[in-house]
Amino acid sequence: MYPPQFSPNFAKGGGFITAIAVDADDGQVLMLASMNEEAFGLTLETGKVHYYSRSRNKLWKKGESSGNMQELVEMRVDCDIDAVIVRVRQRGPACHEGYKSCFFRTVQPDGTLRVDAERLMDPQKMYGGKS
Amino acid sequence: MYPPQFSPNFAKGGGFITAIAVDADDGQVLMLASMNEEAFGLTLETGKVHYYSRSRNKLWKKGESSGNMQELVEMRVDCDIDAVIVRVRQRGPACHEGYKSCFFRTVQPDGTLRVDAERLMDPQKMYGGKS
Repeated sequence: MYPPQFSPNFAKGGGFITAIAVDADDGQVLMLASMNEEAFGLTLETGKVHYYSRSRNKLWKKGESSGNMQELVEMRVDCDIDAVIVRVRQRGPACHEGYKSCFFRTVQPDGTLRVDAERLMDPQKMYGGKS
Repeated sequence: MYPPQFSPNFAKGGGFITAIAVDADDGQVLMLASMNEEAFGLTLETGKVHYYSRSRNKLWKKGESSGNMQELVEMRVDCDIDAVIVRVRQRGPACHEGYKSCFFRTVQPDGTLRVDAERLMDPQKMYGGKS
């Protein structure tokens, strides 16, 4: 499957594209992350979603430390070919804070934040003591 | 309403956060764009979604040239406070290519792209001859 005939525009973003992970069943946005070319290729090749952690400067197979992997159901690409949606089956919470989605808070009209999602898992328990 | 008590982490992204626009009614991801602090503030203040066009280096009120504005229904923020979801009522197509969503193509297993969405509007007619 790899290398694919299609290649996103990695150059535009300094070697990265943005990936939006969406729950394949209910369409909820789970998280946002970057992919470099290797992460993009591995995602298509293995069917497991890979990102590139720009804070840790390393390839990041989602769930490699937490076990909360993402199985690729469909990949979509935007008009500028510099962003993709990965529709996934998410094991456990996508967010390292233990919520299904990283977007577990709303910005209220008065500018405060309000959590309106249920915490699925204690973050301390997600990584077995590892950060 | 502005300045809000909450401020995203603009510094992390060199003055920008990433915004995902989602259809408030059906949850479909419409587009991805950047916001600077001014665009973020104006979005909350006016209820009309503003971005920052990094290719044109200017504040960008969505729909200012096409008429296809986005009315803010809800804003959500992620765990790292460097990305937001804007749940919107979108007038017309969100994509400058005339599709409801910028993500109108799937990446097929053989690496080719396939359009699986309906074009709602002729892009030539969206901007009245303006680019």
